[in-house]
Amino acid sequence: MRLDSSGLQVLSREECLRLLSSAPIGRIVFTDRALPAVQPVNFCLDGESVVIRTSIGSKLAAATRHAVVAFEADEFDPATRTGWSVTAVGHARAVSDPAETARLATLPLSPWAPGSRDHFVVVEAEQVSGRRIARERSI
Amino acid sequence: MRLDSSGLQVLSREECLRLLSSAPIGRIVFTDRALPAVQPVNFCLDGESVVIRTSIGSKLAAATRHAVVAFEADEFDPATRTGWSVTAVGHARAVSDPAETARLATLPLSPWAPGSRDHFVVVEAEQVSGRRIARERSI
Repeated sequence: MRLDSSGLQVLSREECLRLLSSAPIGRIVFTDRALPAVQPVNFCLDGESVVIRTSIGSKLAAATRHAVVAFEADEFDPATRTGWSVTAVGHARAVSDPAETARLATLPLSPWAPGSRDHFVVVEAEQVSGRRIARERSI
Repeated sequence: MRLDSSGLQVLSREECLRLLSSAPIGRIVFTDRALPAVQPVNFCLDGESVVIRTSIGSKLAAATRHAVVAFEADEFDPATRTGWSVTAVGHARAVSDPAETARLATLPLSPWAPGSRDHFVVVEAEQVSGRRIARERSI
């Protein structure tokens, strides 16, 4: 088990993608008017891409257009102070091809927030990294 | 109850700070080598500032020095598809004053990750925003 300089376990790409696929909610990190911005979203992993459903006029759709963004998911247990986090960094793109939109619409991805959200944003997981905090005794 | 353009409930600054103070984990959002970066951390709210404990040589300490960062915490329930998120944006500063360091060391903030973490980073919550997704019936 490889540890990073902070003593956290370094997760493999395969483990990162497995954990990402288990998370119901992630956070998309982008730049909004030159300031760091972060927004929780429900999502679906499609192969090695993160798929998000939003409305075409949303701030998220505008801010992530042709941008490199980060996408993070995690799960921590305050009682045992253990958990994991995974971050994927890559180009975001708005899906405009009707055939791709139709395929993505079949994914198990229904929006939590109210309103029409028929616009898909895909983040290619180009760089994936993950860490795990295990119980101190086992480190 | 004010709703935003996505139909989410807009939280007041007071409600945002109350929710932040209840969260054990948040995520600091910054720029690392010109790319968006995000790292989960445990934290403590000190008045209206977010206090994080790290090691002086950490990537987090270096990347947040004199930077404007975002700090996000949330809590969602996948079963009911409800929850909240709060984001604070502000200047991060490394604490160098020994008196302030001594005071911050008395906060209930012990690091989850292993290793020595005697360096404090404070994020002033200059802009605070929060949203809540309630049950669809009640919106």
